[in-house]
Amino acid sequence: MHGSPLPLPVAMLIVFGAAKLLGEVFARLHLPPLAGEIVAGALVGPSMLGWISPNEVLKALSDLGALFLLFSIGLEVKVADLLRVSAVAAAVAALGELAPFAAGWAVFTAWGGTRNEALFVGAALVATSVGITASVLAERKLLNDRASQIILAAAVIDDVLGLIILAVVSSVAGGHGRLAGVFLTAVLAMAFLAVIAFWGPALVRRWLPSFRSRARADEAEFHIALLLLFALSALALYTGVAAIVGAFLAGLALAAHVDKRVRTLTRGVSELLVPFFLAGIGLNFDAAIFRSKRTVALALLVLAAAVASKVLGCGAAALSLGWRNALRVGAGMVPRGEVAMIAAQLGLTTAVLSASAYSVIVFVVVGTALLTPLLLQITFAAPGGQESRQQASPGT
Amino acid sequence: MHGSPLPLPVAMLIVFGAAKLLGEVFARLHLPPLAGEIVAGALVGPSMLGWISPNEVLKALSDLGALFLLFSIGLEVKVADLLRVSAVAAAVAALGELAPFAAGWAVFTAWGGTRNEALFVGAALVATSVGITASVLAERKLLNDRASQIILAAAVIDDVLGLIILAVVSSVAGGHGRLAGVFLTAVLAMAFLAVIAFWGPALVRRWLPSFRSRARADEAEFHIALLLLFALSALALYTGVAAIVGAFLAGLALAAHVDKRVRTLTRGVSELLVPFFLAGIGLNFDAAIFRSKRTVALALLVLAAAVASKVLGCGAAALSLGWRNALRVGAGMVPRGEVAMIAAQLGLTTAVLSASAYSVIVFVVVGTALLTPLLLQITFAAPGGQESRQQASPGT
Repeated sequence: MHGSPLPLPVAMLIVFGAAKLLGEVFARLHLPPLAGEIVAGALVGPSMLGWISPNEVLKALSDLGALFLLFSIGLEVKVADLLRVSAVAAAVAALGELAPFAAGWAVFTAWGGTRNEALFVGAALVATSVGITASVLAERKLLNDRASQIILAAAVIDDVLGLIILAVVSSVAGGHGRLAGVFLTAVLAMAFLAVIAFWGPALVRRWLPSFRSRARADEAEFHIALLLLFALSALALYTGVAAIVGAFLAGLALAAHVDKRVRTLTRGVSELLVPFFLAGIGLNFDAAIFRSKRTVALALLVLAAAVASKVLGCGAAALSLGWRNALRVGAGMVPRGEVAMIAAQLGLTTAVLSASAYSVIVFVVVGTALLTPLLLQITFAAPGGQESRQQASPGT
Repeated sequence: MHGSPLPLPVAMLIVFGAAKLLGEVFARLHLPPLAGEIVAGALVGPSMLGWISPNEVLKALSDLGALFLLFSIGLEVKVADLLRVSAVAAAVAALGELAPFAAGWAVFTAWGGTRNEALFVGAALVATSVGITASVLAERKLLNDRASQIILAAAVIDDVLGLIILAVVSSVAGGHGRLAGVFLTAVLAMAFLAVIAFWGPALVRRWLPSFRSRARADEAEFHIALLLLFALSALALYTGVAAIVGAFLAGLALAAHVDKRVRTLTRGVSELLVPFFLAGIGLNFDAAIFRSKRTVALALLVLAAAVASKVLGCGAAALSLGWRNALRVGAGMVPRGEVAMIAAQLGLTTAVLSASAYSVIVFVVVGTALLTPLLLQITFAAPGGQESRQQASPGT
């Protein structure tokens, strides 16, 4: 895997330009602009125009885009709001793990896959990747909506549960004998989340002003915010959860205590990098899947199972909020991402998954990413979706 | 050359954290913070602590940092101011090429190098890399100073002259027979510069409002600015000049016509990425040079020649502004960067340069980057340096 053969500014121009152009086209067609940015990645990628290939630099820009996206979402949310919905969110996360796991396992077993393959596909489908949803909610100024808060809180809990399930399954299927360490990892991850969620804001309130007043640099508060972002993302990785969860917690911890200027500077970075995250999903789309009708059928079946299981599983857990909000929560939990790709790669390298099962999971990741903005547009357009748009955008 | 073995957030934390920490330490020692950020790269790099190694992703972040630095500098400068000083700037650029070329050639010839080696070292020393200087001037709010404007205009002209000299020398030394194409490239490069410098602002004034009013996205003006940045950087590369010259011209073209918000969003990106540019210079520092006393002596001699030739050559051409301003212009033209590294790599791969001559050039790049902030601090601290600080910072 070596770098792009294209000079960096040309690669930036192609990816950023295609994303923004298709975003505008989709907006004119009354489709979610985000879906346009994902399609843009597939369009310029190797399967279609072939202008650009996935490479390490684009992967890094995409990962940074996801980090800054979740960080900026965290900056707009109050910890107290998330804690208030934490009981519902825990139920949403738990049912939202069990249903997709069962659905993935059932589809692959019915299709004639091996026991281990079915277990792995099930595990790949459990974890929600909240980036797409968060981006739609932020764009539509819905972050302070109750359904949005449940989605964000559930996504954090979901990540820890997904980690446990993947560890258990890969220890059962691959015989890694890692089961012993799973509970330690889970405890560590939960301790990390609890410490940051409960004490993060208080620590920031205590230390930020003194760092800020002592620093000589212009924009020192922004530098401190970035350092907290990188530090918590790194810590999240080491405790076993996704880096974006750490980024979200960093934003949460800072939310109540930073200047508006820090938000605006962060917005500058997000505006640059988030299109690389979105187009990066499309860039991984592999048209090879369409060579076999059987694989296409399987892919569509698994995609349907992946969508339905989250909508129904998470929705059922959120029914106490009324069915409209339950559908919103369900739709918001649909997207899969990094964890599914990691599970797929792990399955491929340990020879548990066939190449076609691998490409099916990639298809599901791209497919859910494309469907989520549409589902959110539909569910939030229903009556009651507008009422709680409390947050004015500083950017419009 | 494969990627960093470190997870991305960890690499970001190390580089950004070390840069900001040493920047603060240097500020407290009354040294330029920028020099601290360069030293930070050397400190965490393979020659000292070994926490991190140069890799493709860090290189890309560093290159993006340089692009956004020059873009944001361009946004703060008026084309008319640069055109007014263009006659002096052309003289500064021309003398600032001849003197270092002669000095590099003379030192290597006296040292017993081959004719081709001496020619190559001379060519490697000619091109100023204006990033460091621009960063110091922006930090000290000196961009509207007359000396600063001469430096910026001269750096653009310098880049085209440096391109011609490198092409001529590598065609003489390497026998590439490229001499025929050199003049075409030079004409193309000058045409590109002239078109953008003269008509860029007018084109932006004509087209920007109509794009902006038609776009549906939030922050559409920022997106258009970024697309112009990437497009002109790419075009610059294709016409043969450095990408950062294109980035600077994009900033210049937009300067008079974009909102304050675009500047603030750009600042967010610069604050994140410029430390990667600065630390990236230090990261390339190779302590192997200190194994041979003879090489150290040669390196110090070439560094002295590189500094003195720019200060005296460029200074002489700017003497009409008084000797204080002449020294400022000379100091500002000292840093070498990408072009010197490219010349060194070209010389190494065509076997014209020995490995020690190569490492001497790398040493000169790092050394001039470190010395420039100090030289600018000294020359601009002298009487007359404060009087023209016209520009208030929005960020402090």
